[in-house]
Amino acid sequence: MQLHKFYSSLAIRNDKKIVVLLIDGLGGTSHKDYGYKTELEYADHPNLDRLASRGTTGMLTPVLPGITPGSGPAHLGLFGLDPISFNIGRGVLEALGIGIVPEPTDVLARGNFCTVNDEGLIIDRRAGRIPTDICEQRLALLRDIRVAGSDIELHAVQDHRFVLRLKGADLDGDIDNTDPGSVGAKPRPAKALTPRAETTAKIVNAFVDRALDRLKGQSAANALVLRGFSMLPDIPSFHELYGLRSAALAIYPMYKGLARTVGMDILDCGETFPDQLRTLETHWDTYDYFFIHYKYTDSCGEDGDFLSKVNHIETLDSYIDPLVRLDPAVLAVTGDHSTPAALKSHSWHPVPLLLVSSTCRRDGSTAFTETVCAKGGLGHMESKYLMGLLLGHALRLEKFGA
Amino acid sequence: MQLHKFYSSLAIRNDKKIVVLLIDGLGGTSHKDYGYKTELEYADHPNLDRLASRGTTGMLTPVLPGITPGSGPAHLGLFGLDPISFNIGRGVLEALGIGIVPEPTDVLARGNFCTVNDEGLIIDRRAGRIPTDICEQRLALLRDIRVAGSDIELHAVQDHRFVLRLKGADLDGDIDNTDPGSVGAKPRPAKALTPRAETTAKIVNAFVDRALDRLKGQSAANALVLRGFSMLPDIPSFHELYGLRSAALAIYPMYKGLARTVGMDILDCGETFPDQLRTLETHWDTYDYFFIHYKYTDSCGEDGDFLSKVNHIETLDSYIDPLVRLDPAVLAVTGDHSTPAALKSHSWHPVPLLLVSSTCRRDGSTAFTETVCAKGGLGHMESKYLMGLLLGHALRLEKFGA
Repeated sequence: MQLHKFYSSLAIRNDKKIVVLLIDGLGGTSHKDYGYKTELEYADHPNLDRLASRGTTGMLTPVLPGITPGSGPAHLGLFGLDPISFNIGRGVLEALGIGIVPEPTDVLARGNFCTVNDEGLIIDRRAGRIPTDICEQRLALLRDIRVAGSDIELHAVQDHRFVLRLKGADLDGDIDNTDPGSVGAKPRPAKALTPRAETTAKIVNAFVDRALDRLKGQSAANALVLRGFSMLPDIPSFHELYGLRSAALAIYPMYKGLARTVGMDILDCGETFPDQLRTLETHWDTYDYFFIHYKYTDSCGEDGDFLSKVNHIETLDSYIDPLVRLDPAVLAVTGDHSTPAALKSHSWHPVPLLLVSSTCRRDGSTAFTETVCAKGGLGHMESKYLMGLLLGHALRLEKFGA
Repeated sequence: MQLHKFYSSLAIRNDKKIVVLLIDGLGGTSHKDYGYKTELEYADHPNLDRLASRGTTGMLTPVLPGITPGSGPAHLGLFGLDPISFNIGRGVLEALGIGIVPEPTDVLARGNFCTVNDEGLIIDRRAGRIPTDICEQRLALLRDIRVAGSDIELHAVQDHRFVLRLKGADLDGDIDNTDPGSVGAKPRPAKALTPRAETTAKIVNAFVDRALDRLKGQSAANALVLRGFSMLPDIPSFHELYGLRSAALAIYPMYKGLARTVGMDILDCGETFPDQLRTLETHWDTYDYFFIHYKYTDSCGEDGDFLSKVNHIETLDSYIDPLVRLDPAVLAVTGDHSTPAALKSHSWHPVPLLLVSSTCRRDGSTAFTETVCAKGGLGHMESKYLMGLLLGHALRLEKFGA
């Protein structure tokens, strides 16, 4: 039986509230410039530490040892889904990232404007990273292209990147990239990887042919490539699975979109963590499960800015008390993955987990750091088990077997 | 390959003895009235602690994180079976609990006497919890009911509860509960959930119809409902799988029954732990694997009696030395699940494990507590892996692969 269905088969309803505070990219690695400490070890976070002494800690492995997850698998794991079975394609993720919530019948692809020479060979895969407004201008040239069998939407993302959304009744996303992946080659025609996707591939090719006609003559960004054709995976909602009324408090569109895939309500929660907290308080009685997404730690990690990540951890720490005072039955503080400043990217390192509940077994943790969590009472587990652990601590799972 | 078959494929015989001391419901949670300690942390158990310093510790997760197991899955896990694949139904477990060891062809159900009004609607689902002797009297009214296709046995359990056992050649237990689960409804007819179970459902309904006739006119306990129809899962024995001559030293019938499902001999072992130890000594040469079940810790946990659970742990500790002096090649001390007094029920928390063997890698543990075991050298693992670990330490598994 699939893990989420197993947990679902035991789910019962009660009035206990679960809060997950997700600190994006939380985990770090030992940084040689900072005494071989991680950002979390270097930062001063007395409130999180105090919380650790009231709870129990552990480590979450986002997917499997050594696997660096994208945001999609990392979040699906935390939402209790096996992130290998339920992969979210790049096209869908890109759409979620700009606030589009696809219909289950849509096909989405990530598009890149590129520049080709007179023979149609790609000479710049990113079209000189044209500014977003030029991207918008190019898309405007293409918006009235009509192809039978599908409505076509085009959405600028940033620079040369855009999203192609096909809407229709019988579409299928099992289509290979048209991006040849290197300069000196022509964009490839869209190719169906299964018979079911052949009609969709024809639609894509009809669109691309007409788009290339219209882009002809531009000095840069005179062609396009598509990749990551995908559809929304068929994901059951938290309410269907667990009877949880769930809400997401996320500022960035992608995380709202990811939360939407498991049926969370997306609350309008402002621009800052204090805004998110106020939104949480306002909606406290309406939901059973709250997902609070704190983004800035990840961005600093990606930038390689160790001290800025430290700073954002410390800022977050200063707002922990109002959260704790709401007294959720279960509070989990963790990350979706690690983003060590030393690596300037997502990484495979396990992520610290802190769980506080009256049903906890306190494990003697006195701080919230990687080193403490690695020896914590919850041990190490894959992120996909967190959902069951939260439900268990909230007494929302009945006994398995007699 | 199923886990137990994989271990089985490598099993070899030797003269090394394995002893599993199972302390039922061993694990606890932090209790606010006792300095946020667990029962095991609060108790004084110098002998177990000394044993820990000679061995290696770890944590067992009975099923999966967050899952609270019943006794059936919890024990099957410790016996090396995947507790999700090999679930034991309530009917079978109830039978095991009163000392019935079902044949693989039997169908068993848990029965409840209930009270219905003149229209046949349930007004008391437990018939006022009639005393067991009244339950016996009601069953006596029903014992000579004969239905073609099956022999029917009825066994009182306690209060209004009894076991229905159907014996026959072609029975199938895939039958829905007749218990509607609420007052104001009529008992439902037995309904086959698969075509194979239709004949059995008809037999059940024929029995119930005649039983209701005979119960008519009683002021209470004038009807019955059945639930948890089930058959013994097809479980291979320890001897078949591992060549182990195995014996159980359990006082309570259910644990004898569970041990019987994997083919253990059930030794008559008296009423107390010292009795169990004497029985162990007597049969030391006859078996390779001994399963000693210590029940009282679970019962106290269920009662919410923290200090009594502490007391039973301390009592058990005082008898550890005679056990150690028998010098088994491998001694494991663990639980089937946690039963924290703070929760008054089984729980999902992982269970401490202590393993002592000359083949151990000592991990520096100096006590046997949840906090120590959570950081122990064996790490955290699902209970179903314990069997392989025991066989490994007993040098009873040959090398896998060249």
